[in-house]
Amino acid sequence: MALLSEGLTQVLIPAAALIGLVFALVQWFLVSKVRVSGEASDYNGYKDSLIDAGEFEEGVDNFEVSVKVAEIQNAISVGATSFLFTEYRYLGIFTGVFGIIIFLFLGSVTGFSTKSEPCTYNKGNICKPALANAFFSTIAFLLGALTSVLSGFLGMKIATYANARTTLQARKGVGKAFITAFRSGAVMGFLLAANGLLVLWVSINLFKMYYGDDWEGLYESITGYGLGGSSMALFGRVGGGIYTKAADVGADLVGKVERNIPEDDPRNPAVIADNVGDNVGDIAGMGSDLFGSYAESSCAALFVASISSFGTTHDYTAMSYPLIISSMGIVVCLITTIFATDLFEIKNVSEIEPSLKKQLVISTVLMTAGIAMVSFFALPSEFTLFNFGTTKAVKNWHLFFCVSIGLWAGLAIGYTTEYYTSNAYSPVQDVADSCRTGAATNVIFGLALGYKSVIIPIFSIAIAIYVSFSLAAMYGISVAALGMLSTIATGLAIDAYGPISDNAGGIAEMAGMSHEIRERTDALDAAGNTTAAIGKGFAIGSAALVSLALFGAFVSRAGINTVDVLTPKVFIGLIVGAMLPYWFSAMTMKSVGSAALKMVEEVRRQFNTIPGLMEGRAKPDYATCVKISTDASLREMIPPGALVMLTPLIAGTFFGVETLAGVLAGSLVSGVQVAISASNTGGAWDNAKKYIEAGGNEHAKALGPKGSDAHKAAVIGDTIGDPLKDTSGPSLNILIKLMAVESLVFAPFFATHGGLIFKWF
Amino acid sequence: MALLSEGLTQVLIPAAALIGLVFALVQWFLVSKVRVSGEASDYNGYKDSLIDAGEFEEGVDNFEVSVKVAEIQNAISVGATSFLFTEYRYLGIFTGVFGIIIFLFLGSVTGFSTKSEPCTYNKGNICKPALANAFFSTIAFLLGALTSVLSGFLGMKIATYANARTTLQARKGVGKAFITAFRSGAVMGFLLAANGLLVLWVSINLFKMYYGDDWEGLYESITGYGLGGSSMALFGRVGGGIYTKAADVGADLVGKVERNIPEDDPRNPAVIADNVGDNVGDIAGMGSDLFGSYAESSCAALFVASISSFGTTHDYTAMSYPLIISSMGIVVCLITTIFATDLFEIKNVSEIEPSLKKQLVISTVLMTAGIAMVSFFALPSEFTLFNFGTTKAVKNWHLFFCVSIGLWAGLAIGYTTEYYTSNAYSPVQDVADSCRTGAATNVIFGLALGYKSVIIPIFSIAIAIYVSFSLAAMYGISVAALGMLSTIATGLAIDAYGPISDNAGGIAEMAGMSHEIRERTDALDAAGNTTAAIGKGFAIGSAALVSLALFGAFVSRAGINTVDVLTPKVFIGLIVGAMLPYWFSAMTMKSVGSAALKMVEEVRRQFNTIPGLMEGRAKPDYATCVKISTDASLREMIPPGALVMLTPLIAGTFFGVETLAGVLAGSLVSGVQVAISASNTGGAWDNAKKYIEAGGNEHAKALGPKGSDAHKAAVIGDTIGDPLKDTSGPSLNILIKLMAVESLVFAPFFATHGGLIFKWF
Repeated sequence: MALLSEGLTQVLIPAAALIGLVFALVQWFLVSKVRVSGEASDYNGYKDSLIDAGEFEEGVDNFEVSVKVAEIQNAISVGATSFLFTEYRYLGIFTGVFGIIIFLFLGSVTGFSTKSEPCTYNKGNICKPALANAFFSTIAFLLGALTSVLSGFLGMKIATYANARTTLQARKGVGKAFITAFRSGAVMGFLLAANGLLVLWVSINLFKMYYGDDWEGLYESITGYGLGGSSMALFGRVGGGIYTKAADVGADLVGKVERNIPEDDPRNPAVIADNVGDNVGDIAGMGSDLFGSYAESSCAALFVASISSFGTTHDYTAMSYPLIISSMGIVVCLITTIFATDLFEIKNVSEIEPSLKKQLVISTVLMTAGIAMVSFFALPSEFTLFNFGTTKAVKNWHLFFCVSIGLWAGLAIGYTTEYYTSNAYSPVQDVADSCRTGAATNVIFGLALGYKSVIIPIFSIAIAIYVSFSLAAMYGISVAALGMLSTIATGLAIDAYGPISDNAGGIAEMAGMSHEIRERTDALDAAGNTTAAIGKGFAIGSAALVSLALFGAFVSRAGINTVDVLTPKVFIGLIVGAMLPYWFSAMTMKSVGSAALKMVEEVRRQFNTIPGLMEGRAKPDYATCVKISTDASLREMIPPGALVMLTPLIAGTFFGVETLAGVLAGSLVSGVQVAISASNTGGAWDNAKKYIEAGGNEHAKALGPKGSDAHKAAVIGDTIGDPLKDTSGPSLNILIKLMAVESLVFAPFFATHGGLIFKWF
Repeated sequence: MALLSEGLTQVLIPAAALIGLVFALVQWFLVSKVRVSGEASDYNGYKDSLIDAGEFEEGVDNFEVSVKVAEIQNAISVGATSFLFTEYRYLGIFTGVFGIIIFLFLGSVTGFSTKSEPCTYNKGNICKPALANAFFSTIAFLLGALTSVLSGFLGMKIATYANARTTLQARKGVGKAFITAFRSGAVMGFLLAANGLLVLWVSINLFKMYYGDDWEGLYESITGYGLGGSSMALFGRVGGGIYTKAADVGADLVGKVERNIPEDDPRNPAVIADNVGDNVGDIAGMGSDLFGSYAESSCAALFVASISSFGTTHDYTAMSYPLIISSMGIVVCLITTIFATDLFEIKNVSEIEPSLKKQLVISTVLMTAGIAMVSFFALPSEFTLFNFGTTKAVKNWHLFFCVSIGLWAGLAIGYTTEYYTSNAYSPVQDVADSCRTGAATNVIFGLALGYKSVIIPIFSIAIAIYVSFSLAAMYGISVAALGMLSTIATGLAIDAYGPISDNAGGIAEMAGMSHEIRERTDALDAAGNTTAAIGKGFAIGSAALVSLALFGAFVSRAGINTVDVLTPKVFIGLIVGAMLPYWFSAMTMKSVGSAALKMVEEVRRQFNTIPGLMEGRAKPDYATCVKISTDASLREMIPPGALVMLTPLIAGTFFGVETLAGVLAGSLVSGVQVAISASNTGGAWDNAKKYIEAGGNEHAKALGPKGSDAHKAAVIGDTIGDPLKDTSGPSLNILIKLMAVESLVFAPFFATHGGLIFKWF
C-alpha cells in the first residue's frame, strides 16, 4: 500500500484545489486595483493612486481617453457575454439531447435491467447494474459539460475585465502592462485547474456513496465527465473560432487592404466584433479545450487504474494518483507564478518572451521534483496494471518516468513551437523575407514552415509514447498526458496573456491613445502570438497523448485485445479516420471564408453608405457586424460538431469496435499533424507580418514599412493564417480527443450491439 | 487448373505487348505527318498537304511563324533532353550504389552462403540460396530502373515532338489540334504499358531458367523490378517537379505580376525553362510514376500468388493472372483510343472535356468485360491464397470482383477529381468568386476545397479495400490496384495530352501567333488541367492500393502475422509514418520556393540590365534560367530522395519490422490525404484563374478581365498551387509506394537482422 494514508489523501486533494482558488482570487484582486471608469471621481482616484501626473501622455485628454476605454471595454464585455449566452442556449439543448442518448444507449446494454451483474474485470465480485452506470455516466457528462462551460465563461469574464486595465497600465510602462495581463491569465489558469480538480474529486466521492466497493462501475461512469468537458470544448472552439476569424478576416480585408486604415481602427465597423472574438474564441475556447484534456486524461487514467491492481485491492490513495499529480501541479504553478509577478521585473520589451519561456522551464523543473515526491508517497512500490487482457508488473519509479517524460515532451513541443513561430529566429524571418517576391512565395514558405514544424513534436510525442507505453502500458500513456497537463495553470496563464494583450492593443487604438502606447501593447501581443502558439502546441501534444490513452481505455472496455492493421475492418477505419481531420478542416475553413465574405460586404456597405465614417465624423454600426459573426458561428458550428459527435456512434453501431478503433487511430495520427502544421503556419505568418511592421533590424526595415509591397504580401499571409491557427487547427485536437472519449463512454453499447452491417451481411 | 493453357499464356502476353507497341508506332506515324520545319520547301509541302490557303492566319507571316515554331520546339527539346541526361548521370550513380546495397543486405541474410535452403512457405521443398535472390533482386532492380527511365525519356521525346505539331494544327481548328495532342498522349500511354509488360514478362522467363521450380525465390527477386521502377520515379517526379515549378513560379511572378506581360511571352527569360519543365516534370515524371505503380502492383500480386496455391501447384497461367489482366488492358485501351481518334470528331471547344471523360467510361466498361473473361479463362474455379500465416479459399469470380472494384474505384476518383477541379462546376466557381475579396479568401477557399475533395476518393478506396481484402486478402488488394491501372494506356493518353497542349499554347504565344490560336490552345489546356488532375487522382488512388498490397507482401515476407496498433513499437511507427508526408512536402515546397526566388532575381536582373528586352528588340538569355532550374532541381532532389530511401532502411534495421510496418501504414493513410488535397487545390486554383480569364459566362465576366483585382488574386492562388499540384502532391504517392516496395525487397534482411536498438536495450 501507499505511504500516504487514505485520510490524508482525502484532505490534500481538496486543499490543493482550494489553495488554487484562493490564489486565483488574490490575483484577481490585484488586477482589480487598476480602475477603469468614465466617472470623474473614479478617474481622479485612479490618477492619485496609480499614475504620477508626469507620466500622463502629452497632448491627449486623459479623462476623455479613460472614458473611451471604459466604454469600449463595456462594449466588448457585453458582446462576449451576449454571444456566450446565446451559444449556451444551443449547447443546453445539445447537452440535454445527448444526455438522453447516453442514458438510452448505455441503459440498453442489459435491456434496462436493474439487476446487479458479475463484474467484468474483478472476477467473482458483484457490480452495480448497467442501468446505474448509464445514469451516473449521464450525470458525470452533465457535470463535465457544466464545468467546461464555467471554465470558458469565467476565462472570458476575466479577460474582458483585464484588457482595458492592461491598456491603462501600458501608459505607465511595458512592465506594468505585462504584469496586469499575466496576472489575469493566471486567474484563469488557476481557476480552471482548481475547479476541474475540485469538481472531479467531489463527483468521485459522491458517486462512491452509491457505488461503494464497485470501483469498476464508479470509474467507468466518471468517464462521462471527460465527454461532457470535451463536447462543450468542441462547440466552444469551433463556434468561437468561426466568430473571431470571420470578424478578424472581414475587418482586415476591408480595413487594412482596401481602406488602408490601421488594425483596430474605431472607424472599422467590424472592430468590436473582432475584439469580442478574441475573448470568445481564444480565451473561452482555449479554456474549455484544456479543461477537456485535463478531465479526459484524468478519466482515462482512473478508468485503467480501476481495472488494475489499485482497483482490485481498493487502494484509494494509489487510485487517486492522477488527482494527486494535479494537486501538486497547482502548488508548483503557484510558486512559478510568483517568480514572474514578484521576483523578476520586466523593464523593457525584449524581456517579455524570455520571461514567459522562463515560466515554462521553472514549472517543468519544479514539477519534476513534485512528481518524484508524489510517486514515492502515493504509490505502492510494486503493483500490476491492466494491459489488454494481460497484466503488467510495474514499479513506482516507472510511473515517475511516465509522468515526467510527458511533462518534458510538452516542454520540447513548446520550445519547438516557439522556434518556428517567434520572429526572433530564422524560420519566421525567412517567411518574412519571401514576402519580397509577393504573397505567393509567402504562402509557399509559410506552408512549408508549418509542415516542417511537425517533425520535432512528433518525435517528442513518439518517444513519450514509447517510454510510457513500454513501462506502464496504457496507464503510462494517460499519466504522461497528465504530466504534460500538470502545469496547466502556468500554461494557461501565459496563453491567455496573448489575447488579453491583443485586446489591450485594440482598445488603445480605438480610444485614440498615442502611438507609443500602441507600440507597447504590440510588443506584448507579438510575444502573445508566440505563447498562443506554444499553448496550442501543448494542447495538441497533450491531446495526442490523451486520445491515445482514451483509445487504450476504449479498447480495454470494448474487450478487444488487438487492433490489427492487417484486417480489412481496421484498415478501412484507419484510412477513413485519417481523412476526418481534412473533412473537418474543410468545413471550418469554408465557414470562416463564407462568414468573412458576408462581413466584408457589410463593412464595405457601411463605408459606402454612412456619410463621414471614413473621416471619423460618424460612428459605424458595430452591432450588425456582431450579429453577422454571431449568426454565422452558431449556424456553422453545427455541421462540424455533428461530424465529430456522430462518427463514433455511426462507426461503432454499424461497423463495430474494430473499425471504430481504426478510425480513432487514423484520426489521431493524421489529425495531430494537420493541427500542428496549421497552428504554426498561422502563427508564423502573423509574426512575419509583425516582424516587418516592427522593423526591429536592418533586414526588417528593408522589407517594411507598413504599406510596402512586402508588407501587403505579409498581410495576405496573416489573413490566410487566421482560420488555420484559430479555427481549424486548434479544433482538431478536440476532434481526436472527443471521438476517443465518446467511444470510451459508449464502449459497453458498441461491444454488445455494435457492428450491425457486418452482422447483416 | 485454368482453362487457358500455359503455352497459350506464353504467346498471348507478349503478343498483347507487341500489339501495344505497334499501335503506339502507328499513332506516332500519324502525328509525324504534321511537319514542322523552317525550310521553305518543307513549309510548302506542309502547306500543300495539310492547310488550305484560306485557312492561313491573316496578317501574320506564316513562313516566319513556322520557322519560329521549329526554333522554339528545338530549344524545348534540346533543353529537356539535356536536363534528363544530366539527371540520369546522378541516377546512374544512385542506381549503382543502391544496387550494391541491395546485394550486400540481401546477401548477408545467410552470410553470403551459396548453399540451397529449405523453402519458407512451400514446406519440404528446397529453394535457391539467399545469395542468388540477392543477385537476381539486384538485376531486377536495375531492369526496373532502366525501364522506368526509358518510359520517362520516351514520353518526353514524344511530347516535345508533338507540342509544335499541336500548335500548327491549332491553326486548322480545335479538333485537329486535339487529335494531334491526344494521339501523342496515346503514343506515350501505349509505349509505356507495353514496354512495362514486355520487360516484366521477359525477366520472369529469363529468371525462370535459373530458378526452375523455385517460384518463391523467383518472384521474390522480381520485386526488385518494382523497386527500380519506383526509385527512378521518385527522383524523376521530385527533380522534374522542382525544375518545372521553379521556372513556372519564377516566370509568373515577374512576368505576369510585375511586368504585366502575358504567360509564355518570349520576352520572359524563364519561358523556355518553363516549357522544358512541363516535359521533364509532368510528362517524364508522370510516366515514371505510373510505370512504377504498374510494376509494383504486378510484383506485389506475383509475390503473394507465388506463396499461395498458384505457386505451390505451379499453375503458370494462374500465376500470370496479373500479366494477363494487363495484356487485356492494352487491347481494351486500343479499342477505346479508336473511339476518340476515329469514331468521334471534336468540333468545338465545349466537346473536349466530355470527349476525354467518355474515354474513361468506355475503357472502364470494356475492361470490366475483359476482366470477366480473363478471370474465367485464366484462373482455376477454386484456389487458396496466402493470408498472413493462414490460407483463404477463393473462387475465380471473387477475383473478378476485386479487379473490377479497383477499376471502378478509379473511375469514381477520376470523376470526383474532375468535379473539384474543372471550372464547369460550382467548387472551382466558388473559389473564383472568392477572388472578389482578394488573394487571402481565394487561398482559404482553395485549401478548403482540397480538403473536402478527399472525402469521396477515400471512401472509394476504403470500399475497394474492404471488398477486395475480404474476398481475397492481400492478393485481392494487389489485383484491385492492377484493375485501377489496367487502363493505364488510356489514362496516360488523356493525362499527357494536358502538358502537350500547355506547351502548344506556349509555342503559339512565343511564335507570335494570333489571339485566336492561343484561345484554342488555352481551351485544350484548361481541359488538360482537369485531365492532369484526374491523372493525379488515379496515380494517388492506385498508389494507395499498391502500397497497401506491398505492405501486405512485406508483412508476409517478414513473417509477422499481426500489426497491432496496441503495441508501442507499432504505434510510434504509425505516428512517425504519418508525419513523413509533411516532412517530405516541407522539403519539396521549400525547394521550389527557394529556386523560384533565384529565378525571380535572374529574370528581374535580365529585365533591368538587357536594354530593349521589354520592347522586344533584344533577346533574353534563356540559357541562364534553364541552368538555374537544372541546378536547383538536381541539388534539391537529394534530401527528399534520401528521406524516402533511408527511412525504411533505418526503421527496419534499428527498430525492426513491427515499427517499419507501422511507419508504412502511417505514411500510407496520411500521405494519401495530403497528396489528394494538394493536387486538387492546385488544379482548382489554376482553373479558377482560367475561368476568370476565359470569361465564359456573366459571373466570370464580372470577375475579369485579365488584370482585374480578382484576376490578380487568382494568379496568386495559381502560383501557390503550382508546387502543391506538380511537386509535393504527386511526389507523395511515390513516397508511400516506394517505402513499401523497398521494405518488401529488404524484408528478408530486416526479419533476420533488424531491430538492433531493441536488441541492444
